[in-house]
Amino acid sequence: MSSNHEPESNLDFSCPLPITDYKKILLAHGSGGTLTHQLISKVFFNQFQNDYLKSEHDGAVININGAKLAYSTDSYVVEPIFFPGGNIGTLAINGTVNDLSMCGAKPLFISVGFILEEGFEMDELWKIVQSMQKAAKEAGVEIITGDTKVVERGKGDKVFINTSGIGLIDEKINISPSNVKPGDKIILSGTIADHGISILASREHLNFESTIKSDCAPLNGLVEKIFSVTKNVSVMRDPTRGGIASTLNEIAKTSQRDILIHEEKIKIKDEVKAACEILGFDPLYVANEGKMLCFVKENDVDNVLNAMRSHTLGKDAEIIGEVLGETSGKVILQTTIGTKRIVDMLTGEQLPRIC
Amino acid sequence: MSSNHEPESNLDFSCPLPITDYKKILLAHGSGGTLTHQLISKVFFNQFQNDYLKSEHDGAVININGAKLAYSTDSYVVEPIFFPGGNIGTLAINGTVNDLSMCGAKPLFISVGFILEEGFEMDELWKIVQSMQKAAKEAGVEIITGDTKVVERGKGDKVFINTSGIGLIDEKINISPSNVKPGDKIILSGTIADHGISILASREHLNFESTIKSDCAPLNGLVEKIFSVTKNVSVMRDPTRGGIASTLNEIAKTSQRDILIHEEKIKIKDEVKAACEILGFDPLYVANEGKMLCFVKENDVDNVLNAMRSHTLGKDAEIIGEVLGETSGKVILQTTIGTKRIVDMLTGEQLPRIC
Repeated sequence: MSSNHEPESNLDFSCPLPITDYKKILLAHGSGGTLTHQLISKVFFNQFQNDYLKSEHDGAVININGAKLAYSTDSYVVEPIFFPGGNIGTLAINGTVNDLSMCGAKPLFISVGFILEEGFEMDELWKIVQSMQKAAKEAGVEIITGDTKVVERGKGDKVFINTSGIGLIDEKINISPSNVKPGDKIILSGTIADHGISILASREHLNFESTIKSDCAPLNGLVEKIFSVTKNVSVMRDPTRGGIASTLNEIAKTSQRDILIHEEKIKIKDEVKAACEILGFDPLYVANEGKMLCFVKENDVDNVLNAMRSHTLGKDAEIIGEVLGETSGKVILQTTIGTKRIVDMLTGEQLPRIC
Repeated sequence: MSSNHEPESNLDFSCPLPITDYKKILLAHGSGGTLTHQLISKVFFNQFQNDYLKSEHDGAVININGAKLAYSTDSYVVEPIFFPGGNIGTLAINGTVNDLSMCGAKPLFISVGFILEEGFEMDELWKIVQSMQKAAKEAGVEIITGDTKVVERGKGDKVFINTSGIGLIDEKINISPSNVKPGDKIILSGTIADHGISILASREHLNFESTIKSDCAPLNGLVEKIFSVTKNVSVMRDPTRGGIASTLNEIAKTSQRDILIHEEKIKIKDEVKAACEILGFDPLYVANEGKMLCFVKENDVDNVLNAMRSHTLGKDAEIIGEVLGETSGKVILQTTIGTKRIVDMLTGEQLPRIC
């Protein structure tokens, strides 16, 4: 924390991260992996202490005057701002819609904060704003408050967008990593790594760019399908930054249970798999923007799977694993060749500015 | 809108701003003046159409399951990030606390989104985060959800912070520019232009830097004092970007009433006034971060004034003007030498990145 020779009155001013290693922010602090989690827990949670944050959800669940609400925020800095399958605007709406959905809420209201760089093309802003309205309409949410700031040329990068959102949670629904119990089955709603590879391909102008599209989509419709068959869902999460590996590690860690997943059950499009191999990326760590993981009890799993498959965004849903009795909080992958390996939290930066 | 020769199917893709004039974002689009309002109304409101936005409040007022809530967002890009009287973190908390307060709400919950530049000093982030928690505690709000993104060196500027907030509004309170009626008295809570001049002085390393401090403060306590004597407040607004001139113009325009203010009643610290004169700024247009304008009925004005003066942040409160019967939506200044002049909305950029 602080050196032995510092007087006690200075303790507050010494940063709790091991700043001998990290005196400055690295790109990896935004990767969604180990360094992001260190920054969040040692700097942010160290100061902003409350039970809402401790739940380590995609959003906070609050009770105000009898209304049970989900509340979430995300900033979007994706580069490039337009990519196959969407743009920074669709991402900003769907991302927050999905975070609220993963709390078990029906998303209702969205706030938007723009940080524009001087010189940014008005026409591009106009396209983004149109996409945001279209995405909001599709998800059934309203954009009801906002803010605009402009920074000098070279002090931003075209456009950054923050959205926050409020959703209403049915009293009977209680989604939390702490509900996760041994025997829970894990459903993944579709193919992995589409978003991350689409961004990378369009950033690097790679040849397969045109065939790989981001999966950016609002998940609230799919969540409604799940709740139509059971309210008893342990946890739901959309595996964005850091991919399904990071999301499963977060859940394993918070619930203090081991998770076993089966490689053969995890679907990936041929062209995405090929791109991952060429580029040297493990698709388990690559971001998704329209996929979800859903932990349910064994007696509900078939009903939930069928309900998900009846929705366009869940047609490729599959049971990919289960929660084990062991309490070390590890994620274990059973590979297609029959061996087992630990799937760790990402330590470095894989793809900067993926969302 | 679009040229005569464009086919109708292309209409959606032509930007509704007169892009012959503004094909690119200018710093003035972030000034809080005319160009900001043009951008908001012609680009954002053109697409994001709903009654919440039409109210043109500092935040949206929503009803969810019987709870009447205020919801607001702001991004902070102030430069420098540390200045006399505060830093970007205190500003981000107090700014959103104030926007909620101006809707008549008791601020409860805050979300925080950080956009960090690669290479930003961890120690500076740590100081900002500590300040945010301190400011939140002082204002009685909890920071309950957040997000962190990192952009490459040169694609941001140290740290940008977005906050959004939720507050609870008493059923009996209804604050709206549309309540403003002829005869309403206008109270200003204290001296003007402290924040803007403090930022500018510290940015330019001017000599008077150390004596002029930002007025950055949470206004919810002062608002409570007002509501303790009457719930019948027409409108409240904190005159931030663009100063009291812009705020009064917004209210005059929305309420379609003329507003008369008396220069001799508007307090300004001597050193701030001197700095404005040296630098060539009209203090009416310079940003404040801990001041408010409050429109009340004539029969309440003495009680409200006394209540405000009983609070530290309102000790210099003064009745500075009144709403007239004329419906042209103008702001008129009665000068100390007895003449009258129109106080227009700011057209260009005065001080970029003031908040």
